[in-house]
Amino acid sequence: MITGGLGFIGSNLAKRLVDLGGQVTVVDSLVPEYGGNLYNVDGFRDRLRINISDVRDRYSMQYLVEGQDYLFNLAGQTSHMDSMEDPDTDLEINCRAQLSILEICRHHNPRIKIVFASTRQIYGKPDYLPVDEAHPSRPTDVNGINKMAGEWYHILYSNVYGLRACALRLTNTIGPRMRIKDARQTFLGVWIRCLLERKPFEVWGGDQLRDFTYVDDVVEACLMSAASEETNGQVFNLGSCEVISLKDLAEMLVEVNGEGQYTVRAFPPDRKRIDIGDYYADFSRIRSVVQWEPTVSLRNGLANTIAYYREHGAHYV
Amino acid sequence: MITGGLGFIGSNLAKRLVDLGGQVTVVDSLVPEYGGNLYNVDGFRDRLRINISDVRDRYSMQYLVEGQDYLFNLAGQTSHMDSMEDPDTDLEINCRAQLSILEICRHHNPRIKIVFASTRQIYGKPDYLPVDEAHPSRPTDVNGINKMAGEWYHILYSNVYGLRACALRLTNTIGPRMRIKDARQTFLGVWIRCLLERKPFEVWGGDQLRDFTYVDDVVEACLMSAASEETNGQVFNLGSCEVISLKDLAEMLVEVNGEGQYTVRAFPPDRKRIDIGDYYADFSRIRSVVQWEPTVSLRNGLANTIAYYREHGAHYV
Repeated sequence: MITGGLGFIGSNLAKRLVDLGGQVTVVDSLVPEYGGNLYNVDGFRDRLRINISDVRDRYSMQYLVEGQDYLFNLAGQTSHMDSMEDPDTDLEINCRAQLSILEICRHHNPRIKIVFASTRQIYGKPDYLPVDEAHPSRPTDVNGINKMAGEWYHILYSNVYGLRACALRLTNTIGPRMRIKDARQTFLGVWIRCLLERKPFEVWGGDQLRDFTYVDDVVEACLMSAASEETNGQVFNLGSCEVISLKDLAEMLVEVNGEGQYTVRAFPPDRKRIDIGDYYADFSRIRSVVQWEPTVSLRNGLANTIAYYREHGAHYV
Repeated sequence: MITGGLGFIGSNLAKRLVDLGGQVTVVDSLVPEYGGNLYNVDGFRDRLRINISDVRDRYSMQYLVEGQDYLFNLAGQTSHMDSMEDPDTDLEINCRAQLSILEICRHHNPRIKIVFASTRQIYGKPDYLPVDEAHPSRPTDVNGINKMAGEWYHILYSNVYGLRACALRLTNTIGPRMRIKDARQTFLGVWIRCLLERKPFEVWGGDQLRDFTYVDDVVEACLMSAASEETNGQVFNLGSCEVISLKDLAEMLVEVNGEGQYTVRAFPPDRKRIDIGDYYADFSRIRSVVQWEPTVSLRNGLANTIAYYREHGAHYV
């Protein structure tokens, strides 16, 4: 079962799982502002069980969780700005629904294995680089606080009740099926949309260093974490061997696309106050525990992503 | 304004504030399982504005916060066991209501100063002693996770919106007006009740080291933090110069009381898995920023507490 299964990472994971012969239930709310898109499962839709419902709906969750072997718990509110404008909704999805799912698992399916999608956002502005899992958590927005709590519920339920749960702290994920309509999921979505529409895109700041993981590598991390008992009760950074400034990323994207324009401008004030500066992860823990490492280069990842949207872009804007 | 103002610390703070000539609104839900008790303001009730309502009730909060200079935000669900049995209620009070109060302050009273009562519980099992504010947060129960989020909301709203908020991470607080009916607020409540009723009390484990702050010192820390601009956006440990094992505490309590019996037993399994071992705080940060330090010795604190319950105990059991 995949919550957020019609979203960016969820749908890529669903595709991989059915290709491996898995029986997959995807659960998605299809809230228009979030990542869910039925087109994401086009071509393999008939090999899935699709259930449209919201993780906040505890009765549907209780019914759906029953009998599942694995729960890839990816549903979330991911927009930092939305979390500041409507903190209550962020709390409902990223805290309350998570607690409710864990209670359901504990009472109705205690042998399930859960992989929770957490985020680098909980670290806040790094004290040191690369950031490892021991780095203090100092979230800079409501979303970061609520994701931190959501992650902790998973670890607590593992520690206290022996529920087999782990959390992956994702960094920027790129690839086919991401939301490109707006910046709610990632700024890169908007950049790609602008490229497709032959409009210039904006780079805010530009010197910030970041790491990017290609979605197939994130999917692999989910599977490897799910298959291991060593991951229970643990949190793991994902990351990349490549670190790049946003300006260089913009340049690379234009190169890969073959054309395109962008302007570099100062951070808007409402983003500046929740910006974290440079970030990149130390992912040696997951490498040593389950032997995960990224396999797709940034350039290839961007090329695959642009190729996907050239063909399917109309379904995403 | 004091949320939780009929509770243990809130009522002692209210008394101090009216003695200083303050105009004080105490807000309390009087949920029977929590710390609120009208008897706590007996003798100075007519010098207070008392409003019975719940921090989860955002409309009453909005009305009450308007025009206040200071908000001592002490209301909370404090029982660790209750948070595990009913995580949803803990979330509503310790997360959602906090976020809602901060939104209200931001929109309707942005110049208010807020002192939030946080807890050592968010540290979990210490990596080192004494525990300073840089120690990682690793809560061991749902209450600890939710209090951590509640504290972070306050710091975030200070950082992002310039709301003048700070948080005090309280350790074990003792003194008149604490709940002694059961162990929901502190194990010491039950010990004192047993002493008063001439029954033996139980010490679980016994070797764990702890620090205790007398309630008058906590009240002083609230006032000093409220009066300083240096505290905005900061968190501070409270603590004690004395560190004591629970066995020695039991011995001291019996001595101070003049009689009494206790038995030392192993931790019950449901408590063991959320126990944190030894804990005592480094409180040098608050000492250096606002010159707070504890003034009441543990022995005197226990003596005052027992004297209070000898006289007023009937109103607390």
